[in-house]
Amino acid sequence: MTTMPDAEVPPRAVGIVGLGLIGGSLAIDLAAQGVPVLAHDADEQSVRDATRAGVVQAPLGPHLERLVDVDLLVVAVPVDRVPEILAAVAARPETGCVVTDAGSTKRSIVRTASRLKLDARFVGAHPLAGDHRAGWGAARAGLFRDALVYLCPAADTPPATLARVERFWRTVGAHTTSIDAAVHDRLLARTSHLPQVLASALASVHHAAGIDAGQLGAGGRDMTRLAASDPDLWSAILLDNADQLQPALDELEATLAALRASLDRGDAAGLRAWLAAGSGQVPAKKHGADSAPPPAH
Amino acid sequence: MTTMPDAEVPPRAVGIVGLGLIGGSLAIDLAAQGVPVLAHDADEQSVRDATRAGVVQAPLGPHLERLVDVDLLVVAVPVDRVPEILAAVAARPETGCVVTDAGSTKRSIVRTASRLKLDARFVGAHPLAGDHRAGWGAARAGLFRDALVYLCPAADTPPATLARVERFWRTVGAHTTSIDAAVHDRLLARTSHLPQVLASALASVHHAAGIDAGQLGAGGRDMTRLAASDPDLWSAILLDNADQLQPALDELEATLAALRASLDRGDAAGLRAWLAAGSGQVPAKKHGADSAPPPAH
Repeated sequence: MTTMPDAEVPPRAVGIVGLGLIGGSLAIDLAAQGVPVLAHDADEQSVRDATRAGVVQAPLGPHLERLVDVDLLVVAVPVDRVPEILAAVAARPETGCVVTDAGSTKRSIVRTASRLKLDARFVGAHPLAGDHRAGWGAARAGLFRDALVYLCPAADTPPATLARVERFWRTVGAHTTSIDAAVHDRLLARTSHLPQVLASALASVHHAAGIDAGQLGAGGRDMTRLAASDPDLWSAILLDNADQLQPALDELEATLAALRASLDRGDAAGLRAWLAAGSGQVPAKKHGADSAPPPAH
Repeated sequence: MTTMPDAEVPPRAVGIVGLGLIGGSLAIDLAAQGVPVLAHDADEQSVRDATRAGVVQAPLGPHLERLVDVDLLVVAVPVDRVPEILAAVAARPETGCVVTDAGSTKRSIVRTASRLKLDARFVGAHPLAGDHRAGWGAARAGLFRDALVYLCPAADTPPATLARVERFWRTVGAHTTSIDAAVHDRLLARTSHLPQVLASALASVHHAAGIDAGQLGAGGRDMTRLAASDPDLWSAILLDNADQLQPALDELEATLAALRASLDRGDAAGLRAWLAAGSGQVPAKKHGADSAPPPAH
């Protein structure tokens, strides 16, 4: 008779709310590692499809009934819907799972978690992954491989909770960096939200002028690809980060005003200098410390 | 003794002025087809490198001395330098080669050709190919495969000259479409020049805020790639098309103003509609016929 001292402990289940591009891709990677996934999505068909695909083991339940069975919960819904899910978690104090999210804004979500007294269990997260496609149909294996995930612990999140969430994102191949939620939102206004609205604005100019995608070269296609992003998802992000996006738009418009002045003057040297500043060929003047988000890593 | 009635006539040489990304890539494709290429570049090292690579057969000469030996000349220099090359061609009436160019603006170049009485020999061209890289070092085989080339004949260009230039671009795999030069410049202000300046403006905002490329996700990288374009090349393009770029910038800024008003109002429905207009999910209102470039093909 042999003993089996090293028999593997079966991994505890992970819960996922929202089986879109982010939640669905997480579920695919976790299932591939043998981690049981319990999931909920407002679109019940997604859960059925993911279950049939062998990715989801069972429904989490419309009221997160099986939350007690999960070790970690990922809230992967649009940012304006995160609060109601966090409230549902807070209403179940008998559950002890660690909670993270995947929203593109972080201040309001971390504030909500604190208000709901979830600090001990909560770390906000924002994986820089995904693209303009959305939904379970866009989910795919390996989406987070080598992706950066920003982590925003709440004021009273213990190190062990942060470590648990770091480990989680690393199991799907991401690397993590902790960042203050306010710094995150200021940075992302410029690295992500401003690019999104410029792509949408450019595409709108094209539509209004009767120009279709077939008339674009490679550069024009690159510059409008994001315009296909989900309007519901993005309206919530832009609204939640409006106070940071507005100054970023101020900076952009000031830059365009300088270009237009050079164009009006017929100032070739001014145009060259303007273009060179964008190409990184000359050091650009730094903003004051009060407006410049510091490098995040 | 045998006759050789079907012996191949050796192809006449093609002349190329400017061995950058466009001219160099043309030379590579032509040489691969056995077409002799005579070339000139203000940077003589490019000609030496291309000759050593077996791509260029011989120099065209700093004053286009060997122009008489070429059947077709491609002027692939920045748009502000095209006039001096056309003048050099016009100063050699004993030569008969057909002349085309590769500039991103077309009105001023076609006007210059007409003023120099080159109509019979000239067709302006703009291949939608290339990227943010520049120079002979960026030249590569197959750059024009499946690319669209806009052709702008001058007022008195005969059909045979247009047909010759169409054939030429097709031999390197491009497809061609004829377009009025003014329509071209109005269209490209929106499909190419506006994307270029938005990429540069966004990159400038990033530089000024101390944000480096490593902090961007895939979308942010797509949206700033063009910012690395050559400032000399692009300052000439923007200056030459300033009167068309300014109204395109007006349209963009009006679109952004609508976004900002929705952000200020906290208007989620307005934001969704604004984003949906860019995603093509709702039909956008058309501009008046006086401002809308017609589809080009």
